[in-house]
Order: sequence, then structure tokens, then C-alpha cells
Amino acid sequence: MTPRYDILGIGNAIVDVLAPVPEAFLSKHGMHKGAMALIDADTAQRLYEDMPAGQESSGGSAANTCAVAANLGASVAYLGLVADDVLGHVFRHDITAAGVHFPTPSATGTAPTARCLIMVTEDGQRTMNTFLGACVNFGEDDLNEAAIAGAAVTYMEGYLFDPPAAQAAFKRAAAIARAAGRKVSLSLSDAFCVHRHRAAFRALVAEDVDILFANETEITALYETNSFAEAAAWARRDVALAALTRSESGSTIIAGGDTFEIAAVPTKVVDTTGAGDAYAAGFLTAWTKGLSLDKCGKLASIAAAEVISHFGARPQRPLGNELAQL
Amino acid sequence: MTPRYDILGIGNAIVDVLAPVPEAFLSKHGMHKGAMALIDADTAQRLYEDMPAGQESSGGSAANTCAVAANLGASVAYLGLVADDVLGHVFRHDITAAGVHFPTPSATGTAPTARCLIMVTEDGQRTMNTFLGACVNFGEDDLNEAAIAGAAVTYMEGYLFDPPAAQAAFKRAAAIARAAGRKVSLSLSDAFCVHRHRAAFRALVAEDVDILFANETEITALYETNSFAEAAAWARRDVALAALTRSESGSTIIAGGDTFEIAAVPTKVVDTTGAGDAYAAGFLTAWTKGLSLDKCGKLASIAAAEVISHFGARPQRPLGNELAQL
Repeated sequence: MTPRYDILGIGNAIVDVLAPVPEAFLSKHGMHKGAMALIDADTAQRLYEDMPAGQESSGGSAANTCAVAANLGASVAYLGLVADDVLGHVFRHDITAAGVHFPTPSATGTAPTARCLIMVTEDGQRTMNTFLGACVNFGEDDLNEAAIAGAAVTYMEGYLFDPPAAQAAFKRAAAIARAAGRKVSLSLSDAFCVHRHRAAFRALVAEDVDILFANETEITALYETNSFAEAAAWARRDVALAALTRSESGSTIIAGGDTFEIAAVPTKVVDTTGAGDAYAAGFLTAWTKGLSLDKCGKLASIAAAEVISHFGARPQRPLGNELAQL
Repeated sequence: MTPRYDILGIGNAIVDVLAPVPEAFLSKHGMHKGAMALIDADTAQRLYEDMPAGQESSGGSAANTCAVAANLGASVAYLGLVADDVLGHVFRHDITAAGVHFPTPSATGTAPTARCLIMVTEDGQRTMNTFLGACVNFGEDDLNEAAIAGAAVTYMEGYLFDPPAAQAAFKRAAAIARAAGRKVSLSLSDAFCVHRHRAAFRALVAEDVDILFANETEITALYETNSFAEAAAWARRDVALAALTRSESGSTIIAGGDTFEIAAVPTKVVDTTGAGDAYAAGFLTAWTKGLSLDKCGKLASIAAAEVISHFGARPQRPLGNELAQL
């Protein structure tokens, strides 16, 4: 059956609060630069009070990927849990306005919409602190089976391994997709997330994932090696298709015996928030349109370059022409 | 007595929702490009539903000025009304984090925190739609007399003439400042705002204003002339000091018999939101530090160039060195 969607994303539905900070702010708060830490409501409040004036925009890793993919011209749906509050309305507005179908109803319960406090240092690196809020309740009941079965690729973020019930939902979504003859794609999200859930990730990657996204620190964390080449060799054995990103050094696409080296698109780096999400969006959009793997990598790099050239994780200009030009 | 603050700002406390739109979006909704329109709650809801994904950040004209001035190194306080809701907390956090003293307690009542839906077209121009919310109740009771009497300059935005009770508060604040031997500064804010309240503005400018800020369309609207030179001549007669801005053509500072032409600082224009606010911040910061008028204009132009180089009305980098370098 022809897919109803090119891409269906599942992830933590989060509103970002971005602020520029000096390096000292990270050490003062014991943050690991470039990483994502989970924080509770009290810590979120304390940290917010100490952080500079910010800028709010819808985020969430897979949600960013969905928004970018829709901007690029893919047909996209998203599943994720927000509360019925102001930030939940902002999230719903933004992803819908981006052209993404978002069928998940708002959570009842008292947990507020999740937020991520993102510190951007002068080198453009982002360091994230996530209060999961309503996302902790995302579970199998929140899966929309028809949407998953109707999507060419179901794309999930590794961060889903953190909320207690989401890991089961993750496995179930993969099973639905595979039963419908669709593809399953995963982003490893964060090296610390990989460390927290390595065994589960390893099993999932080997058993259920067709298309894997990871950056250098994530893929080496997954396979517990210091060698990118060695990690890449493991990935080549585990998944049909892997896209491994290396910041300004570009990315390596691995598919069976084939390897494609993709150059990064040069740009002034303002804020790397969403770089990996946008890369996955470009890749999957091109892939679902049947383009060659080097063109998938090219569109991925173009999308990533757009979002790192400004504050915030979603594009600030229409990208529809980029696909057509390939 | 030595002033406790360099600048005290009074204005509508607003959270901005910024989104890039095509030109056609403005005509579809009957918007005047570059202007500010007042909208009610229902219209705000309808317009929000139709607008693209946005980015939220604290705004409000005088509040922007205060945040930029504090960033530049001035000692600043602000008076304005937010509700006790999520956006109100965002506003309070951001202005406080910017280093601005914000003594106004949150409004009780049911009106939510004001928001401004800002459409940014590809030329960087912004078109604003303001739902005033809690700001409509700002009145004389919300003035902090000690803060006003203790500020070298009380700076007010012309937009304060729109909420019913604020105009009286405006007059009262000017009287308090003058009685304490302080200066009163006004920004005309918007040509349509000037048209709505021309007689009141004329009287105020002639009677109570020491330092006037206006752009070309605003100053010509005030004096009902098509000639910038003629409008400038009127301003020279009405106020001790006027800074008249002309976008990329720079600005003209008028002080008695003296005139200073200030060049704009060249930059890539991404979003003009807050350009005039930042200009006033740079000018007043330099002025309260005792710098010469050409240096006041220079710092004003530097601050304006920073905020138009990115999305959003407040600086994304520390500007403290700019003052020192002058």
C-alpha cells in the first residue's frame, strides 16, 4: 500500500528555552557541555532563575526532525505528549503550522508541558537540561497504529528511552511498522543517553532498526570503542543503513559494502541546537523520495547548515527548493 | 541627589511571538507593513492559528529599551503590567535576568499577559499585532514614585497612549520626574499611534518631553508634513533634544542650534523588530554617562545594528564593551 506519510516521528514533545551563556555558567552548574541532562521541576525552576533572558520555541528532537522534513517537502506526522497549557498550545501550534499532522490529544493529568533549558556558549555549542513533564506518561496507548502502519519510515529519538513507559511504546511502534512492511529509523540522540541505556539500544539497533543516525560520540559510546572506524564497522554489520555525523567534518553514510563521505555545508555556526535533528530530516526526506544516498547526505547537510546558522532548532526560511534542486 | 537609576522605562509589558511570513500573508490579513495594530483576544487567536511556527521572547517597546540599556551598562528599572501566568513569568524572568529592576507586582484580574504577534517579511521588516491583555489596566496606581524620582531619565513609549488608563499614568509620571528635577523622554513608537493620539502627543512633546525619539514617518505624522526637514525644524523648537532615525540612512540628532548626522552601522538586516528600542537604549545609556551627542548617536546605532542582525528584539551578545570603547 502506498504510504500515507513519508515520515512518522515519535518523541518527547518539548518547548525549548534558549539563552546565550558564558562558559563559566556551565561549570557553575556542573553541566557537561554538549550533553542533555534530565532535571526535575525544582531544579528546572532554580536553573531558570539563574539563566539569562531566553527565547522560547518548540523543540523536541524528533519533533524538530518532523518540522524540518515537512519544510523540505515530506509528508509527515508526529506523536508526542503535551499538556493542555500555554506551552502545550505553543507546541501544537508550531508543529501543525509547520505542516506536520499531530493527532496525539493533550495529556490530562497535572504534569505541565515538558521544557528544555538550553545554554548556548559562544562557540555555538548547546548544552541541554530537560524537565520531561507530561512526556513521562507517554506509553503504548499513545501510539496511533494507523499512522505508524501508514508511514514509509517511523523515526524515533533515543531520548524516548528515558521516560519510563516510552521504551515499551518504542518497541511496540517498531513492531507495528515492521508488520506493515515499513522501515524503522532511530537517532541515538546523546552519548549520555546511550550510556544510560546501552544494552537496550544495542538490542534494538541489531533487531529492529533499518536506518540509524548517530554522531561520532554516540556511535563510539554505543559500541564502547574510541575508534570511529571500529564503531562504523559495527554499525555496518548491525543496520542496513547508517548515517554517522562528525560536525564540521561532514558525515559518513554506510550501506552494506558501500560508504559515502559527505562534506558539511559551510556556514557560520551560531547555535548547534537541532543540527542532528535537521540532518535526519534532510536524509529521510530525500530517502523517502527515492534519491541516491549521496543526495540524501547532501540534503541532510543543507538542512543542518540552515538550523545552525541561527538561534533555535527549526528553519527560519522555506527549504522546499533544496529538494527540487537535487 | 545622585540618581538611583540612569533610566526608568514605563511601557506595555508584552511577550512577542515572531514568525517569518511571505508578503502575501500581510495583504491576506489586511495588515499595514511595518505598523502596529491593536487586536482583541478573538482576533489574536484567529491570527495565531493562521500564522507560521513562531518563536516567543519578551518584548514591549520600553522593556526592550531597558533590557538593551542594562546590557550596555546602564542602571535601569522598568514599570509595566503582566499577569500571573506562564508568559508573565517569562517576561519577569527575562527582564530581571537582563539586569533590570522590575518592581511592578503581577496583575490580579483575569486578563492574560499581553502578546504581540509579529510577522517578519523577507526584507526584515516587522509588522505587529498586539493583544494588550493585562496592560489595559496599567494606571497611575502602578507608578512607583520613588523609582521615577530616583531615575535620571524616565523613558516612556508612545504605545502607552493606547490603553485607556495609561495616558493619565504617563502624564503623572512626567510630573513626578520633573518635580524631582529629572528628565522625561518619549518615543513616538508608531505613525498610526501618532495619528490616533496626535493632539495629546503634540501637547505632551511641547510641555513635558526633554528627549524625543521618533523615526521619519512618526515625526512627519506628528507635525502633519511630508517634509522631514520641516518636521525636524518643529521638533527643534518643541524639545531640548531629539533623535530622529531614518533606517539605513542613519539618524539626525537635534539639540538647540546643533545638528549631528549619525551614520547607521552596516549589518545584514534579518529582523528590524526592536531597532528603534535599541537605538533609544544606546542613546540614553551614553547620554546618562555624560558622553557627547555624537557618541550617544554612535552607541545608539551600534545597539540597533546588533538587534536587527537576528530574530528578536533583544541583544544576543554582551554589549558592555561598546560603551567602554567610546
